[in-house]
Amino acid sequence: MLLNVLTQCIPSPFFEGLWRHPEDPSAEGYRSLAYWAETARMLEDSCVDALFLADIHGTFNVYRDSYAPALRHAVQAPTIDPAFVIPAAAAVTRHLGFAVTYSTTFHEPYSAARMFSTLDHLTNGRIGWNIVTSDMRVARGTGLTKPLAHDDRYERADEFVDLAVRLWEDSWEDGAVVRDRETDLFVDAGKVHAIRHSSRFFDVDVPHQTEPSPQRTPVLYQAGASPRGRTFAARRAEVCFVTLSSFASGREEVSRVREEAASFGRELRVLHGTGLIVGRDTADAQSKADEYLRWASHEGLTTKWCGWSGVDLGAYADDTPIESIPPENLYSVRKFLGELPAQRQLTVGDLREYVAVPRRPNRFGKLMLFGTAVQVADRMEEWLARTGIDGFNISPAFAARGVRDLCELLIPELQRRGLMRSSYPDDEPTLRERYFGPGNRRYARSKV
Amino acid sequence: MLLNVLTQCIPSPFFEGLWRHPEDPSAEGYRSLAYWAETARMLEDSCVDALFLADIHGTFNVYRDSYAPALRHAVQAPTIDPAFVIPAAAAVTRHLGFAVTYSTTFHEPYSAARMFSTLDHLTNGRIGWNIVTSDMRVARGTGLTKPLAHDDRYERADEFVDLAVRLWEDSWEDGAVVRDRETDLFVDAGKVHAIRHSSRFFDVDVPHQTEPSPQRTPVLYQAGASPRGRTFAARRAEVCFVTLSSFASGREEVSRVREEAASFGRELRVLHGTGLIVGRDTADAQSKADEYLRWASHEGLTTKWCGWSGVDLGAYADDTPIESIPPENLYSVRKFLGELPAQRQLTVGDLREYVAVPRRPNRFGKLMLFGTAVQVADRMEEWLARTGIDGFNISPAFAARGVRDLCELLIPELQRRGLMRSSYPDDEPTLRERYFGPGNRRYARSKV
Repeated sequence: MLLNVLTQCIPSPFFEGLWRHPEDPSAEGYRSLAYWAETARMLEDSCVDALFLADIHGTFNVYRDSYAPALRHAVQAPTIDPAFVIPAAAAVTRHLGFAVTYSTTFHEPYSAARMFSTLDHLTNGRIGWNIVTSDMRVARGTGLTKPLAHDDRYERADEFVDLAVRLWEDSWEDGAVVRDRETDLFVDAGKVHAIRHSSRFFDVDVPHQTEPSPQRTPVLYQAGASPRGRTFAARRAEVCFVTLSSFASGREEVSRVREEAASFGRELRVLHGTGLIVGRDTADAQSKADEYLRWASHEGLTTKWCGWSGVDLGAYADDTPIESIPPENLYSVRKFLGELPAQRQLTVGDLREYVAVPRRPNRFGKLMLFGTAVQVADRMEEWLARTGIDGFNISPAFAARGVRDLCELLIPELQRRGLMRSSYPDDEPTLRERYFGPGNRRYARSKV
Repeated sequence: MLLNVLTQCIPSPFFEGLWRHPEDPSAEGYRSLAYWAETARMLEDSCVDALFLADIHGTFNVYRDSYAPALRHAVQAPTIDPAFVIPAAAAVTRHLGFAVTYSTTFHEPYSAARMFSTLDHLTNGRIGWNIVTSDMRVARGTGLTKPLAHDDRYERADEFVDLAVRLWEDSWEDGAVVRDRETDLFVDAGKVHAIRHSSRFFDVDVPHQTEPSPQRTPVLYQAGASPRGRTFAARRAEVCFVTLSSFASGREEVSRVREEAASFGRELRVLHGTGLIVGRDTADAQSKADEYLRWASHEGLTTKWCGWSGVDLGAYADDTPIESIPPENLYSVRKFLGELPAQRQLTVGDLREYVAVPRRPNRFGKLMLFGTAVQVADRMEEWLARTGIDGFNISPAFAARGVRDLCELLIPELQRRGLMRSSYPDDEPTLRERYFGPGNRRYARSKV
């Protein structure tokens, strides 16, 4: 079973309001080296595969047409740039992998390739790239982007990744680096090639600026849920994040993405994204659930939902029927409301309540693992057996204490069951080998 | 006296060919965390002010119209992205400052501001930014830039820095970050402001994404030598790099840049850039000079000169008079030849020889400090007294051994003379306070 820990360099990653928990240092620590070094050390002691750092470009400003709610309630704000945490966390670990979200919309392939080659060198082959096309709405006003339609974003992402992979794989042949002191020959230049690409997005004709790193291409992660995103993942990604909502639909989703990958001659690792609250015993788990409910921020949850959906819930009276929401946004609302029983005409008030009030974790099984270590491990085994996933991408509630609980309470139970290792094998020095086995250090391209 | 150490994350920083020295680990180490952590630790043990990491975007390809010479002889290639070395080096130090070259031509102010805020948080206020407008010629083909004329590059740089400073200084008022758990108030949003800027280069209208860091604005370094560059430094920089060629012209240059800064109501620290070869005694210094001459790469020196000047010395026969070089490049040649006695008609052959053969360090006083610790310290005192500089930006020959010699041989002599401290003072926690004294933690803008 594979296990990633998902977090973000912000005060309250994924659970709005939980920065307020008095024992959780994330409100201060999210921007300190010591905090991230400590997190990395704990995860390595527990043999976790990788620490995955999400990211956002911009600040939410849909709710109340203002940045204020996101700032007040620390909703995906303030941030630091997560990529810079990695070298320091890598310096205090030897095995833990690192993945970071990096946008194909806001960056350029040439610099992106150098950045990931640098991180792969500095981590000795432990880096992964979570490829995102990014939300244009959040980034508005940052100057980072002209608006791109959804399909154009994916067209740019396709070209971006193909070009970056060519810089990593095709520019420097194996054996190009010679380092022969007497003949003053660092590189056998005949084995280094300029990579050419000319399109409406990119215009590149140079060799890669960095010598080959242990993995060359970082492990490619992707989480696209749209058909275009799924094809993108199947063709190019190596680890695919899914958020499954039931065993039945989950099994279907997992086999669909595996089949699509197989049609490109490729293999994918599929990780199910989920929250976690784990207690020493039932009472401890319940008391943590109570804390979770107490500290959750209703305004924060609303702010995040509005930012994601593009619907300003502050702009409508409670009794407004949801059909009055403009058609371009109604799509996100309906998708979301699919989860609600539709016995009667639904109003913005229903929506607001559903969005703002966190469900008790035990009623919220699909997005939260909850209970004692035994209960959670049982549940994880069920997910594994019934959906065919390869493992989990776990986001612990309460950023710092949640990581400790994961490592001290849950992982020992998973190790006892043989679901997780108790030490890192010596023959898997790179992150890719962690996922695909010893010797599989190089990226496998689509065969089609 | 201020002392920076200047290097680059490449095999042979500033001295072409010296990666070949059998005892120097830089040919391998330049891309490893351990190498940079060790360098940082040594510099901190010796109370150096800052480690300054230069950078380049692209690979030289002027000489022989090819990338091959730069690759063969490791001329500013291969590189890693130096910014990622800093968090790991910061994690093993407490006082050492870090400066990194970052281009206003190839990046965007919004992301740049977040990157430097991140580094300032992670280093606890020890970060500086060496502002460069970058060489378009080297970057050709990287897709990072459309060609910009020299003055346009500076116009973009002016706007870039002004906008970044506004994001750092004006977006979040002091006291904006509240972190009040009970009222669910992380940020007093009334104290956070969107920064607006609309021009042909940038279109920004958002608040800064990162909460204020210890210094807010990184210490701004600049090295512009053109009149436009000098005005840029006087108006915006805090530390100015100069490369002086004599005491007399040096004194004039230093007072001119100080006067220009004063006209903006600003104060500048001026550091003279120089190489260093220091020996235990005269014989050791001579033997190091011999090694320097032995391992220097003639082809590498030619490649670098051609890359910088834009003149392909491989394209002309030796007896070509230099006047035959195309007018747009003749300027760089003449500037360079100002150093040569012009007794007769100079040819490309003269130029090639002058470029390719390294001078013995003791005949090359202006760009190299050379001798025993006592001799070098005498020479430094002379530079300080006769030009009015505030200190040095030293680039040691032999990257790793050179740093060790600096720390073990030269700095103890400078400390004995009272030119350098023997421990970091407690009341200067930030890099800016190191340069401008306790309490001067914030950037001082132009008053005009």
